Amino acid sequence: MRVLVANANTTEAITEACVAAARRAAAPGTEILGATPAFGPRVISTRAENAIAAHALLSLLAEHAGKVDAVVLAVSHDTALDAARQLMPCPVVGMTEAACFAACLLGGKFAVLTLGTAVAPYEELVARHGLAGRCAAVAAISATAQEAIRDPEGAQAMLLEAIVELSRRADAVVLAGAALAGMDRVLQPRATVPLLDGIACAVKLAEMLVALGLPKPATGGYAAPSGREATGLSPALAALLKGG
Amino acid sequence: MRVLVANANTTEAITEACVAAARRAAAPGTEILGATPAFGPRVISTRAENAIAAHALLSLLAEHAGKVDAVVLAVSHDTALDAARQLMPCPVVGMTEAACFAACLLGGKFAVLTLGTAVAPYEELVARHGLAGRCAAVAAISATAQEAIRDPEGAQAMLLEAIVELSRRADAVVLAGAALAGMDRVLQPRATVPLLDGIACAVKLAEMLVALGLPKPATGGYAAPSGREATGLSPALAALLKGG
Amino acid sequence: MRVLVANANTTEAITEACVAAARRAAAPGTEILGATPAFGPRVISTRAENAIAAHALLSLLAEHAGKVDAVVLAVSHDTALDAARQLMPCPVVGMTEAACFAACLLGGKFAVLTLGTAVAPYEELVARHGLAGRCAAVAAISATAQEAIRDPEGAQAMLLEAIVELSRRADAVVLAGAALAGMDRVLQPRATVPLLDGIACAVKLAEMLVALGLPKPATGGYAAPSGREATGLSPALAALLKGG
Amino acid sequence: MRVLVANANTTEAITEACVAAARRAAAPGTEILGATPAFGPRVISTRAENAIAAHALLSLLAEHAGKVDAVVLAVSHDTALDAARQLMPCPVVGMTEAACFAACLLGGKFAVLTLGTAVAPYEELVARHGLAGRCAAVAAISATAQEAIRDPEGAQAMLLEAIVELSRRADAVVLAGAALAGMDRVLQPRATVPLLDGIACAVKLAEMLVALGLPKPATGGYAAPSGREATGLSPALAALLKGG
Amino acid sequence: MRVLVANANTTEAITEACVAAARRAAAPGTEILGATPAFGPRVISTRAENAIAAHALLSLLAEHAGKVDAVVLAVSHDTALDAARQLMPCPVVGMTEAACFAACLLGGKFAVLTLGTAVAPYEELVARHGLAGRCAAVAAISATAQEAIRDPEGAQAMLLEAIVELSRRADAVVLAGAALAGMDRVLQPRATVPLLDGIACAVKLAEMLVALGLPKPATGGYAAPSGREATGLSPALAALLKGG
Amino acid sequence: MRVLVANANTTEAITEACVAAARRAAAPGTEILGATPAFGPRVISTRAENAIAAHALLSLLAEHAGKVDAVVLAVSHDTALDAARQLMPCPVVGMTEAACFAACLLGGKFAVLTLGTAVAPYEELVARHGLAGRCAAVAAISATAQEAIRDPEGAQAMLLEAIVELSRRADAVVLAGAALAGMDRVLQPRATVPLLDGIACAVKLAEMLVALGLPKPATGGYAAPSGREATGLSPALAALLKGG
Repeated sequence: MRVLVANANTTEAITEACVAAARRAAAPGTEILGATPAFGPRVISTRAENAIAAHALLSLLAEHAGKVDAVVLAVSHDTALDAARQLMPCPVVGMTEAACFAACLLGGKFAVLTLGTAVAPYEELVARHGLAGRCAAVAAISATAQEAIRDPEGAQAMLLEAIVELSRRADAVVLAGAALAGMDRVLQPRATVPLLDGIACAVKLAEMLVALGLPKPATGGYAAPSGREATGLSPALAALLKGG
Repeated sequence: MRVLVANANTTEAITEACVAAARRAAAPGTEILGATPAFGPRVISTRAENAIAAHALLSLLAEHAGKVDAVVLAVSHDTALDAARQLMPCPVVGMTEAACFAACLLGGKFAVLTLGTAVAPYEELVARHGLAGRCAAVAAISATAQEAIRDPEGAQAMLLEAIVELSRRADAVVLAGAALAGMDRVLQPRATVPLLDGIACAVKLAEMLVALGLPKPATGGYAAPSGREATGLSPALAALLKGG
Repeated sequence: MRVLVANANTTEAITEACVAAARRAAAPGTEILGATPAFGPRVISTRAENAIAAHALLSLLAEHAGKVDAVVLAVSHDTALDAARQLMPCPVVGMTEAACFAACLLGGKFAVLTLGTAVAPYEELVARHGLAGRCAAVAAISATAQEAIRDPEGAQAMLLEAIVELSRRADAVVLAGAALAGMDRVLQPRATVPLLDGIACAVKLAEMLVALGLPKPATGGYAAPSGREATGLSPALAALLKGG
Repeated sequence: MRVLVANANTTEAITEACVAAARRAAAPGTEILGATPAFGPRVISTRAENAIAAHALLSLLAEHAGKVDAVVLAVSHDTALDAARQLMPCPVVGMTEAACFAACLLGGKFAVLTLGTAVAPYEELVARHGLAGRCAAVAAISATAQEAIRDPEGAQAMLLEAIVELSRRADAVVLAGAALAGMDRVLQPRATVPLLDGIACAVKLAEMLVALGLPKPATGGYAAPSGREATGLSPALAALLKGG
Repeated sequence: MRVLVANANTTEAITEACVAAARRAAAPGTEILGATPAFGPRVISTRAENAIAAHALLSLLAEHAGKVDAVVLAVSHDTALDAARQLMPCPVVGMTEAACFAACLLGGKFAVLTLGTAVAPYEELVARHGLAGRCAAVAAISATAQEAIRDPEGAQAMLLEAIVELSRRADAVVLAGAALAGMDRVLQPRATVPLLDGIACAVKLAEMLVALGLPKPATGGYAAPSGREATGLSPALAALLKGG
Repeated sequence: MRVLVANANTTEAITEACVAAARRAAAPGTEILGATPAFGPRVISTRAENAIAAHALLSLLAEHAGKVDAVVLAVSHDTALDAARQLMPCPVVGMTEAACFAACLLGGKFAVLTLGTAVAPYEELVARHGLAGRCAAVAAISATAQEAIRDPEGAQAMLLEAIVELSRRADAVVLAGAALAGMDRVLQPRATVPLLDGIACAVKLAEMLVALGLPKPATGGYAAPSGREATGLSPALAALLKGG
């Protein structure tokens, strides 16, 4: 089984970190491929960047249509998830979506923990996934991604303090944001609730969907596009919209 | 006051029709400019097209940043509305958003009426605008946009029947979709509830926001981007992300 | 265009302040008329007073039916808004309703800021307008209206502190309550998010509704009353209920 | 124990019918008093009438403050319920509120059945009581109140058909509206789910609240008014607002 | 009228305390019977215990089917309430359900106050009753039940502090948990909002339902079971499932 | 990896069918064990039976605590899911929960299809899982389980018709109820949307949770019980409650 780990940022280092995390989580027979968009934001951190990255990501995915068995979106905003799911002939799983759904299977409520000022976008994301009722809180430590990379031990101390606080209301904590990749393994021994990493969860859910062998919807808003005309798109993306 | 009517489809004829409708609604001192994206879907009708068009639309808007007083999004999916609102230095109003908010001022519940199979996307759009509790129903006549253009009288009869049905539960009906442009003027005399056209409402709300002279948020997720790096974007769009 | 600014309190000074604010916001061709009820609470601040003022307000409006093009309710509780909308032959806009809807066009979430112990009524009001999902918080400074009038600089300091706190979660702040009239202009230069004044927003929305020229619903719960009998009401109010 | 059955319509016959129903439901030691407002709508059936009747009802209640142990609002719109609860020194129960809460104790979901075009107001009322999640449906037979009074057997047949339909989704049915008074006793033998009459439920809940001997809230929005000034109100109502 | 006060814990002392509270609340003609399950958890405080106690409680109730006029569940988790309501031929009322519904009749919002770490289960319980919209907060003092029994004055001081805090948002406070039985009478004189005891409210509501004489639903999910086969259950419980 | 497929009905044939379905879905290294409760309802179809079966199921699970790596609840009501999750030292997955979460990964909305009169319990179950916002509909064909077993082709025709209808609103359909086991494989070729079988989904999610190696929550309402005392329970169940 070939699983594409598709970044929506144009930063190669993030792709590489996500591919490594995906390989750690993958079952023996799962091959992990990484891919980075040809254009778009270096690191998505605002609404406008997320909207622009959607096109970049879909162009990237179109190159791999028919060549992979599943796609994991390696971007914690689950950028263009519903569009990718409609466009691609194979299952597509978002990393934050995956962690939130997995967290639901471990208890009653989960929390999302991130850094900087990203609370509102994750609250909206959880709501869009229909999981607001299962989410006890979205919280952020005050450090930015840059600060967390410069001072990982300081960031870990802040994260641990936040996890202790969140575990009063939540049975599991989703760590969201590329800068927190791998933090689950470091912090889990000191936490009283399970910590979820989006890439690991997304790889396992992608493997599950491939194993279940379910068809793609052929009707409704997630059916593959057909006969759609466009201008100025990459040939692969234009071909997918055209269908046939 | 200069108001940009920005299409997100690449079909010039839709832009022209929307510009004409905007001019009918505009106050004496309001100048209406139309614009069409340089790339993207001919006519947005699926999730993937809507996601791609977001980039095209933001690129288009970036060309006009600082040159217009407000933007009306001339696309009934309110494509990239929140991203545009963040990106642009001036007010941005979506046409379906505008019609729904205006409808709220006329009674208790509104309905949205469209054609073809577009019910689910409009339901999601209304929910994203936080107005699900005011929306009695999203309904569609069975004709497609093409059929409505080929047989306008047939489409009008179907619309009128749907309006009668919807007026049992709704105090106002929003007509959504480019193919229904102008239908409000034709059908209003035969309807018992007000029919709302997105372009007209959006122009009036854009004029209101300009008149109120409110500043743009300088903090939070709608503050203008600053210092954001990207690759392969149009110079104007890259400059807006970079800020300064 | 003639717009009636109708107070629901019997305090003339509030009417005058609201009329002045309305005139500042009105377009050149808009004539603003003020009106104060003949009976009822001096200043509405409890549920019972609000219920009583509804009758007083509707009696007042009935005197102007057919003589004005739109009504702005100059009372931050949007007293009897749905009843007024049903009763009157012209558009009716509530000031808090107006500010909340306008705030929705500027970002994702808005907050409402008031004074004293009025949080719960505004929470209920926002919910009744169907906007609870867009409202990040309703907050109040500890000063009462009387204290704010006695010590405006103290009140401004408290408001500014609250606005800073609210702007962590909200993209815009609605200032609610007669005692805060005009505070938006004073505080805006020191705030990072737009501050909304209900009267200004309501005047602009009233102008919009008149310009759109939409008919009143002729069916459903907002259709004008017809053939309704009553005892002991003012002749004008009784006539409106009777219809014809 | 003295329980006031207070109508909000000015039609004496409705008061009398409700008093009779209240007496059938009352416990041996409960004395039922009826009262009709001195002014206001003959029969409340629109939003404007309901808003006007609030003042009339509160004026009526004020005459009885301190002279009764509890109040039952004998109007199916639960007119001015929260205001009355704030104003009066004794418990106040609305008849539709009472029937809905009682219905919740009998199963999972209840339905509300009324006549004419009154569905939306009851939906709003159930939502305002916070019970939308327990309400399977609000439905209406097509007959008006007048038609139901002229042809009771025809109305009963329509009601029974609706009850059969509603019992597929609901475990209990609330009969709402003065014209349906007493219908529960006639139709219950032919229904498979319990039918609830608002007056009977309200009398029993009023008796319960008196028996529990709970104090009125002394803080918050339901605390008795104090020091409130007003103009042109009845002496009794003005005195209650003034408090002391 | 015979009302069974059925404990779901196997601790006799709790049954006795609840029976005493029930007798204080009962009307003159109401006979109170207490009953304790033959097996199950000593004191329910976790999800697993609550699930196990459901069987024990239903077995206990089955012994009394046909011999009592109503059942009050003397367990603050309202254990197996919907199952008991379906199974028994008479009305069944839960004590927390009862207190929450009664609290709704006294103001706009209520709060639930308990002790230890029980907040989440009561939040879920309130939501399952459909009353989340009326519940301002579920809070707990830090003392456990054991600590409250050892140091009642310390617990009372903590409760009073919590009640003062909750009364800023709530018009009534429900005291939940066997360890708080009787606290309402001790604390009410020092509280500004009404304090509700579940047993008292449940007895009054049980009396109300018996007085109303409503039939049990004969259709839907609360109709008595019929023809259901089972293994290894008590004869009385097996007989109720079998019906007939 | 050893996965226990635990029935909550006492009908061996259902256990066997579920074990067979689980083996078809299991990965090569997964060993499937089946188990049937020692007491309780033959086939759960009412609230009372579901409540009784919870105890039976937890007793059954307790026998396997420490001997299996994960548990799949082979009962479409997800009986006692939260209690089992708290009680057991390993992951526990419910079959309907699993199918609903998997369905969420395939599109926007899912529907649940069952037979007989079971709509309301599944609606409540979906809501309890926090997924009401993702569920377009719960529907049932009119055939009972017995009729479906007697006339499988008739049932299939009815199911297919329902699936066609549901696929207008849903992107995936969950088949719920033991009588529909295996129907997904029969009907999938004729359906336009994916059909989900709970057992297959639950086995894959159980495998995922084991592979992720996440710890059980050590705090909150899903932490293992400890020091809990009970009477008359099986030694294994009593030991788990006691902990240690």
